[in-house]
Amino acid sequence: MTLPRVLAFDVFGTVVDWHGSIAREVDATGLGVSGDEFALAWRAGYQPAMQRVRSGELGWTRIDDLHRIILDELLQRFGVAALDEERKRHLNRVWHRLDPWPDAVAGLTRLKSRFMICTLSNGNIGLLADMAKHGGLPWDCILSAEVFRAYKPDPATYLGVAQVFDAQPGEVMLVAAHHDDLAAARACGLRTAYVERPLEFGAARPKDVSPRPGNDFHARDFVDLAQTLGC
Amino acid sequence: MTLPRVLAFDVFGTVVDWHGSIAREVDATGLGVSGDEFALAWRAGYQPAMQRVRSGELGWTRIDDLHRIILDELLQRFGVAALDEERKRHLNRVWHRLDPWPDAVAGLTRLKSRFMICTLSNGNIGLLADMAKHGGLPWDCILSAEVFRAYKPDPATYLGVAQVFDAQPGEVMLVAAHHDDLAAARACGLRTAYVERPLEFGAARPKDVSPRPGNDFHARDFVDLAQTLGC
Repeated sequence: MTLPRVLAFDVFGTVVDWHGSIAREVDATGLGVSGDEFALAWRAGYQPAMQRVRSGELGWTRIDDLHRIILDELLQRFGVAALDEERKRHLNRVWHRLDPWPDAVAGLTRLKSRFMICTLSNGNIGLLADMAKHGGLPWDCILSAEVFRAYKPDPATYLGVAQVFDAQPGEVMLVAAHHDDLAAARACGLRTAYVERPLEFGAARPKDVSPRPGNDFHARDFVDLAQTLGC
Repeated sequence: MTLPRVLAFDVFGTVVDWHGSIAREVDATGLGVSGDEFALAWRAGYQPAMQRVRSGELGWTRIDDLHRIILDELLQRFGVAALDEERKRHLNRVWHRLDPWPDAVAGLTRLKSRFMICTLSNGNIGLLADMAKHGGLPWDCILSAEVFRAYKPDPATYLGVAQVFDAQPGEVMLVAAHHDDLAAARACGLRTAYVERPLEFGAARPKDVSPRPGNDFHARDFVDLAQTLGC
């Protein structure tokens, strides 16, 4: 099998630990709510919010703004009244400050030596650029739903990566910790690599990370993937 | 004066030496034409080709494809008949392999320590990503006319950078070796820094690089700019 030349990475959960990062910041902020529960609720609002864009109920809206809509609902639901506008804005930008999984920088650095490595995230470009600077993620290029004006799993996103790099779909491989994302990429002709992130939803809720057929590669983490791909 | 937080860089001529890189490759390819003249003629076709897109005569067309249209005309005009399709494709991608000016990587690395550094080029994303990998350019983010579906000097490009980073126009500074680009950015409210590139058109045609009023900064090169901005 010839190797792909572009590796496109899902980001939230695959490259960075959204649950741990948000839970830690919420706990440290002293809002009087459980950081663990708040992180899970925030993330749970994500797909329904994007669905409002996909369905046309909302016009094109960046994740930063969707996160803020969800945050305002959550602050009400969790009974947090004490935050002024500046602190709400700061908290909303916690998604720009998510910490990478421990293997991410080392693995990406090795993969970058041989492949074009880019993001393919529903996060907006500014969010992803801030996150890369925060965590030292060595992307060759930041691609986002914002570039394609469509959210994953819209085929325009997966095929958009191939077009950007003047590549056939089979020359691009999506790397993700989510089988639905990988399945949508595969349906567009991309290769796929699954990465285990058993703690994506926190230590109390280990995720089933057993291999499924269909993916070209199954890796424990990014260093394992680099090893497998000969980097 | 408060400093901007985002530095957006023009690329062709400002970050990389298109004239020298193309002249060297054309000379080395042995086409029997002057690399110097061929480079100048290729670049001279660039603005008219973009104008065909701006005017609506052509639909949205990436620079890679515009470069190829110009290349095909030039090969005919210069009387080069010997190139097969694969070599034409390779030659067209010389724009992906342009070498940085000697100060570029060191200067960008210093500027990156304090600012968000991104491209703002009419070059397409894949071209800019290949060029960054080729030359080791440490961009935080690659922005391009391709993201905004408009070519500079369309205000959508300059204001697009500010929108991507959720910034006011005055929080963004364009760095360029071309006064017309800087003037268009300034008209949108961006700050501007002029960088001297006296050899942009080759050693035989030194460019007037004397300071002009209106720019916030005037720098000899990127290392000088980094020094001036306290990096």
